[in-house]
Amino acid sequence: MNVLIIFAHPEQRSLNGTIKNAAVAYLEAAGHQVEVSDLYQMNWKSAVDGRDYLHHQPEDRLFVGNVSKVALEKQALAPDIVAEQEKILRADLIIFQFPLWWFSMPAILKGWVDRVFTKGFGYGAGKRYGGGKFLGKKGMLIVTAGSDTHSFSLNGINGHMDDLLFPIHHGIMWYSGITPLQPFIVYNSNHISEAHVAETLQTLKARIDSLETLDPIHYYSITAGDYDENDVLKTHLRDNKSGLAAHRKSSLGLTFQEVVNADPASTENQ
Amino acid sequence: MNVLIIFAHPEQRSLNGTIKNAAVAYLEAAGHQVEVSDLYQMNWKSAVDGRDYLHHQPEDRLFVGNVSKVALEKQALAPDIVAEQEKILRADLIIFQFPLWWFSMPAILKGWVDRVFTKGFGYGAGKRYGGGKFLGKKGMLIVTAGSDTHSFSLNGINGHMDDLLFPIHHGIMWYSGITPLQPFIVYNSNHISEAHVAETLQTLKARIDSLETLDPIHYYSITAGDYDENDVLKTHLRDNKSGLAAHRKSSLGLTFQEVVNADPASTENQ
Repeated sequence: MNVLIIFAHPEQRSLNGTIKNAAVAYLEAAGHQVEVSDLYQMNWKSAVDGRDYLHHQPEDRLFVGNVSKVALEKQALAPDIVAEQEKILRADLIIFQFPLWWFSMPAILKGWVDRVFTKGFGYGAGKRYGGGKFLGKKGMLIVTAGSDTHSFSLNGINGHMDDLLFPIHHGIMWYSGITPLQPFIVYNSNHISEAHVAETLQTLKARIDSLETLDPIHYYSITAGDYDENDVLKTHLRDNKSGLAAHRKSSLGLTFQEVVNADPASTENQ
Repeated sequence: MNVLIIFAHPEQRSLNGTIKNAAVAYLEAAGHQVEVSDLYQMNWKSAVDGRDYLHHQPEDRLFVGNVSKVALEKQALAPDIVAEQEKILRADLIIFQFPLWWFSMPAILKGWVDRVFTKGFGYGAGKRYGGGKFLGKKGMLIVTAGSDTHSFSLNGINGHMDDLLFPIHHGIMWYSGITPLQPFIVYNSNHISEAHVAETLQTLKARIDSLETLDPIHYYSITAGDYDENDVLKTHLRDNKSGLAAHRKSSLGLTFQEVVNADPASTENQ
């Protein structure tokens, strides 16, 4: 497969840097082609603005959606956006790797999505949720989280990790046609010991070796007729669930056996 | 009250710009003091990196949490961060205003949170979830969303708006002690007519005139003993709910009567 890793951490010597380097090595050893967009090293511009659309005149009011769509059609998107779009088109698997900051992506990664997933490319290009332009591509998150699994469990105080990642898995990936695989999550990452780093890398290697056969997250889809004319999930599909979990076909939640739950140690490592 | 508005839209002539200007006018007319951090006008730096911590040496590995905590203690945070922290300390009410992009905040606003809520200030400064440094302050979101209310309802395909905003209301505000008020949300904002803009501003004015008496979102808290030793919500409090909604004491969901659900019209306006 062609694999694109979007990497968002300011420190190469971090746990995230270690995991990213290992992921590249394991992927290449397994015969995959790997491209990495290291957003900090690229000094990635995070903020959507008029300069992203080369035909846009500052005196004209900026309608972000419409102007970005015209820019795509006119080949007037900023070159850094075009380069990322070409990487996406080449990729069979797109990995977002990041530390969970404030229960979401770091700004620099959000800015990659905001700027690269332009109208006509990331949305407004075919059907939403299961039928978009990127149908057939897979996605996967590699995430480090500072707290433990309990606090991210179904009734854990931080919210269930599934629900926190829903805006990415469902709202970004599935929306545009990308099928998300189960995420690879390292909990307690602020206090991870060297032994657990080694264990994490072993688990990551096993994950990568099974990439082709991994079960994805199954969401309901518009194209399959799972939603009514108001875009509401049909009653008979809800399975007594409500909230974000209702949109998943399987009720498995995270496959915690694949997740590393490190013991607390003394050093910040995320 | 002292009100701080963090505004994140690249176009002053947008619906968001109109709402922001009206909010400032209504707040001042009601006798409040208003400060605005207009992140695009400020050319706000979004990405957390070593330059945010003036004492940090590039040859040293960057541990973001620890380094930011030391920088706070040494008064070695970058001046733009310090200025925002001082605004927060002065504020009784903090408003985040933004268009919902990819079911979350625009990158520039996420970058404001990532950089300003440093360790020892936004977290690691007193108890989490109901007992942080900002206890007594209120927060409120003003959000425009491109789709309609149905698609953001309990079983709507985008996910319930309450759940999508949970990482902000609960994970950023409540985590650090800020009590979130009900959000002010404008749906169908890409296709809003002039008449509905006028109606939206009337609704906004009514909201601002009732700011002092508005019912907040009531979340369970660690300090009140609502969570067990693993940070999991105690069983008897769950009220047969699971998922993110379980952390709310009230089961009201959004107060939709306060929400403007504009009819589709012809122009993009968000």
